[in-house]
Amino acid sequence: MEFTAKQLADFLQGTVEGDLQAKVCDFSRIEEGKEGTLSFLANPKYEHYIYTTQASIVLVNQDFIPSRPVTSTLIRVPDAYKALAALMAVVEQTRTKKTGIDSTASIASTATTGEHCYIGSFAYIGENSSIGNNCQIYPYVYIGDHVTIADNTIIYPHVSVYSGCVIGQNVILHAGCVVGADGFGFAFDKETGKYTKIPQQGNVVIEDDVEIGANTTIDRAAMSSTSTVIHRGVKLDNLVQIAHNVEVGENTVMASQAGISGSVKIGKRCQLGGQAGLSGHIRIEDDVKIGAQAGVISDVAANRTILGAPAIDARDFMRSSVIFNRLPELSRTVSQLQREIEQLKKEINK
Amino acid sequence: MEFTAKQLADFLQGTVEGDLQAKVCDFSRIEEGKEGTLSFLANPKYEHYIYTTQASIVLVNQDFIPSRPVTSTLIRVPDAYKALAALMAVVEQTRTKKTGIDSTASIASTATTGEHCYIGSFAYIGENSSIGNNCQIYPYVYIGDHVTIADNTIIYPHVSVYSGCVIGQNVILHAGCVVGADGFGFAFDKETGKYTKIPQQGNVVIEDDVEIGANTTIDRAAMSSTSTVIHRGVKLDNLVQIAHNVEVGENTVMASQAGISGSVKIGKRCQLGGQAGLSGHIRIEDDVKIGAQAGVISDVAANRTILGAPAIDARDFMRSSVIFNRLPELSRTVSQLQREIEQLKKEINK
Amino acid sequence: MEFTAKQLADFLQGTVEGDLQAKVCDFSRIEEGKEGTLSFLANPKYEHYIYTTQASIVLVNQDFIPSRPVTSTLIRVPDAYKALAALMAVVEQTRTKKTGIDSTASIASTATTGEHCYIGSFAYIGENSSIGNNCQIYPYVYIGDHVTIADNTIIYPHVSVYSGCVIGQNVILHAGCVVGADGFGFAFDKETGKYTKIPQQGNVVIEDDVEIGANTTIDRAAMSSTSTVIHRGVKLDNLVQIAHNVEVGENTVMASQAGISGSVKIGKRCQLGGQAGLSGHIRIEDDVKIGAQAGVISDVAANRTILGAPAIDARDFMRSSVIFNRLPELSRTVSQLQREIEQLKKEINK
Repeated sequence: MEFTAKQLADFLQGTVEGDLQAKVCDFSRIEEGKEGTLSFLANPKYEHYIYTTQASIVLVNQDFIPSRPVTSTLIRVPDAYKALAALMAVVEQTRTKKTGIDSTASIASTATTGEHCYIGSFAYIGENSSIGNNCQIYPYVYIGDHVTIADNTIIYPHVSVYSGCVIGQNVILHAGCVVGADGFGFAFDKETGKYTKIPQQGNVVIEDDVEIGANTTIDRAAMSSTSTVIHRGVKLDNLVQIAHNVEVGENTVMASQAGISGSVKIGKRCQLGGQAGLSGHIRIEDDVKIGAQAGVISDVAANRTILGAPAIDARDFMRSSVIFNRLPELSRTVSQLQREIEQLKKEINK
Repeated sequence: MEFTAKQLADFLQGTVEGDLQAKVCDFSRIEEGKEGTLSFLANPKYEHYIYTTQASIVLVNQDFIPSRPVTSTLIRVPDAYKALAALMAVVEQTRTKKTGIDSTASIASTATTGEHCYIGSFAYIGENSSIGNNCQIYPYVYIGDHVTIADNTIIYPHVSVYSGCVIGQNVILHAGCVVGADGFGFAFDKETGKYTKIPQQGNVVIEDDVEIGANTTIDRAAMSSTSTVIHRGVKLDNLVQIAHNVEVGENTVMASQAGISGSVKIGKRCQLGGQAGLSGHIRIEDDVKIGAQAGVISDVAANRTILGAPAIDARDFMRSSVIFNRLPELSRTVSQLQREIEQLKKEINK
Repeated sequence: MEFTAKQLADFLQGTVEGDLQAKVCDFSRIEEGKEGTLSFLANPKYEHYIYTTQASIVLVNQDFIPSRPVTSTLIRVPDAYKALAALMAVVEQTRTKKTGIDSTASIASTATTGEHCYIGSFAYIGENSSIGNNCQIYPYVYIGDHVTIADNTIIYPHVSVYSGCVIGQNVILHAGCVVGADGFGFAFDKETGKYTKIPQQGNVVIEDDVEIGANTTIDRAAMSSTSTVIHRGVKLDNLVQIAHNVEVGENTVMASQAGISGSVKIGKRCQLGGQAGLSGHIRIEDDVKIGAQAGVISDVAANRTILGAPAIDARDFMRSSVIFNRLPELSRTVSQLQREIEQLKKEINK
């Protein structure tokens, strides 16, 4: 497929600056842009590449003001990154999807599958489970008993969904993620020094439009009437840990290797950086931003941006970090002041 | 099933405070307690919920003194959390377990399986391996060659147990965990700048009553006569890393995403917080508590509680953290003192 | 098999110090050395064991000078660890490898497999994919469509290689690792507070001689003409995260649970400690050492050794850490100085 700048601008409701007939047939990153490709500029850090890129067309934000001449044709749109997403989604839809139920799949006689599903080789669907329409269940997906999966959901290879879990529509579960393993619940016996397992009898509920990264783990809730809940629109990266009875609010995102302890409640539209960790039983309100590697040990009010371990206001943390880096100097200064004061005392008492 | 307060108290050897005939048929969390459910209060942080919960019965510790009136019937027991575990275990035992060997399972002719086992669809059991009695081997479990698994062990889907490993009885391995992959052993060649693999020829030994979380990885030992050992009663959460030749002492527990480097030896009844990391070749003695995200780079004596990176005594770390948070202020104070001393010097030398 | 000190020294081009006829038939760790075993001393931390070990022969570096008498026979070689690796590799080669294509494997009619391959039970190889000669593809390995795998590569159970990825020769992928899952790319819509998925249409390229640990995840690049690249000789430990469009330079190694954000470029021969985290869009030059748990948020010049979060020069970090640990004391000293200065002011103004 090949498109002209004019065609793309019409589709995106943007305006062309340059050659209306410039043609592209592929995407490229701006730093590697070649003739015949479409690139984009969203992160200001990459602006300098726009003056040298060979990309034929570059999507830019409406308010972008070049500081030097640009040879590529520009298409101005309200949000260059969103426009790119829209174009890539069009390409994505042209890809053929797998269909049909593979003869090697093991589907319980009491399970049901919707229309137009792909059920791959060796997939396993347990008793009384139901799969919605247009789902894609890849090879080696394990769906336990009494699991419900709604329409248009994609489950990649080697995902395990333990019994009793509920998964919404338009959900994507990437390879190797585990939904519904037992929470980490044990009662310690002081006399014997041993731990007794608390059976984990709740489930996991994943609402619509959620995407879960590869090898991420989401534990089932402890008690039979309770759920670990991932609300609508949440996006979790790879290798994230969500413990039992956690609730993650709508449209919250977590970068890779973040870890959430048991019974934490996280609000809507929060952002967690990579490797951030949250202690158990705390509450994070809406629109909180938690920096990478932060360690959060208490409740956080809405709209805060925090960093460090234990986490504090992000700007305060960065200010303290600057001083941390010159602590040896500060310490020497204090020692010097001590000596000077001793000297002054002597002089005064002379 | 429905039980009265009296029946439960008799079973738990506790005492009822309130309506002996109060009935429950399910569990609930105290903050969400509904009529007809049994809840519990163990964490003092949740005490305020006991005054408003709708749970018909609440398990409390013997010494609990309410500060306000409670409408629920109370059952006093020595340890409310342990009592809960006991009741949940009773419910758990009423659940039907899967049995039988699925026709799609691939079991080597030289392998043996005990009585009353469940071997799920597509399970794989290699040459000369043996599975004990009453084991549950879920779909897609990979058991390599020469593996021994004792009685009553449960292995969830997508677990890999590499060749030569030994697993005890009453062990639970959650989905996706990997037992016995190669340790990270390479010899660096300064001349070529390349790494040469050190073949990893030892194994992993997991003793009785161990539980391993989802997607956790435990590497095999380097040398053929050595083992990475997880001793009896250890509980590891999800996404934990145990490197080659590590030894984890009895009844030690690790929260999610903790990482243990090669040849570390950890004592009995230690507790590691989430995302804690231990450097290689160190020794942690018994009953040590290592806080979340701690970075431990040297040996730790018994009974210590440590935190921070590099980890120090936890209380010292918290005290230093408090000052860290106001380092900019401390720095300004020091600068001010410098100026004042300069002024004093001038005044004295006037 | 049994070897004498003389035979081993000849093979390793080393020199014997002690009994030329000392015999060994197995390896051992120096702290557990038994008669009839061969051990080695490379890490000076273990030197004290050489004076008590029961190992019959110990490999040592040429320049090792014992401070006390040693009873074991020594073999001096230029690099004891490398010599050990060479001997273990010889043993490794005597092990029989699995061969043949299992009848339960699902191989697309358009896929090709080389000579002398092992394709295990339930393995899945998608459309138009090709597997080189002498490869070992274990049970439950998922190879998507249009994947290329070169000669002598070993892929352990439960690995997922998504469509379009390219894997070199002599590569080892450990159990459960995921190659080519979607990168974490979403466009945030301020108006709706929702995220729109950016389709991830690039791939992952893994060059020759790479080893990837268990449950590690490597995301595919975002744009169709781009790749996440793991260059020749790279070794990644377990549970590592590599985000989309990252490039890891030749012979770089990463310890477990390290996490690399999107579009990071890492040079050659770098070393990353466990749980280290790198922010997106930064560039790490050649021969950089990044300590465990470090948080790197900006570019790093060649040959630097850094530590801490945000990471600084490692020695500076350790110096500041020492002061951090006595911040309460420093703070008290400053308060004391304030009081003394107030006192001096009074005295001067008397």
